[in-house]
Amino acid sequence: MKACLREYVDAFNASDAARVTGLFADNATVEDPVGTPIKRGRDEIVAFYGHATQVGARLELIAPPRGSHANAATITFKVHVEGPDGPAHIDVTDVMEFDAQGKIVSMRAYWGADDYHPANAS
Amino acid sequence: MKACLREYVDAFNASDAARVTGLFADNATVEDPVGTPIKRGRDEIVAFYGHATQVGARLELIAPPRGSHANAATITFKVHVEGPDGPAHIDVTDVMEFDAQGKIVSMRAYWGADDYHPANAS
Repeated sequence: MKACLREYVDAFNASDAARVTGLFADNATVEDPVGTPIKRGRDEIVAFYGHATQVGARLELIAPPRGSHANAATITFKVHVEGPDGPAHIDVTDVMEFDAQGKIVSMRAYWGADDYHPANAS
Repeated sequence: MKACLREYVDAFNASDAARVTGLFADNATVEDPVGTPIKRGRDEIVAFYGHATQVGARLELIAPPRGSHANAATITFKVHVEGPDGPAHIDVTDVMEFDAQGKIVSMRAYWGADDYHPANAS
């Protein structure tokens, strides 16, 4: 699971949406951020990451991935983005669940409005 | 939610189990680590934190708490413990869900066997 999460970060930062979405099961769900409508299935996930990887966002892991005693693991990172008012970062923790084949079946991204930090304000 | 999580860390590190468990709703659940049997309700949670705060474990936050667009927030930290073979730390991310009164109703701690790091091996 942790190798998959490190590949997720590397593929995302290579702006390689196909590599990212290839880590997901066909019937996976993505809730990013938690509390917003869930993307379901390959088409919606491909559309989501196709956009996310093309806007120049970069993930910076700030701690080793965490596992569990089940089919779940987490990554905690900053997303560096070009916001409407200049560079910014978002503090995020992702929780991923995996199927028996090692594919991601559920991704939930925890970040709220106050986790968005403009660079010129911090 | 973030203020509650910071209080959770401070109360834990003060070995004050009553302060910690006072942050939880009466019907809360604790799954620590994820994949093991769930503690349910005040009695089991008081027993869990009564033990956890008496063995000298200390939480070191390594990133700001993350919120969400819902009733959930996360903390990512190291737990410093005195293990059977000496000092060690465990890499952990907790996901907490809150009720309308701001009490914790669900705590899930993500860490696996390979997130346990003896100090003399790292």
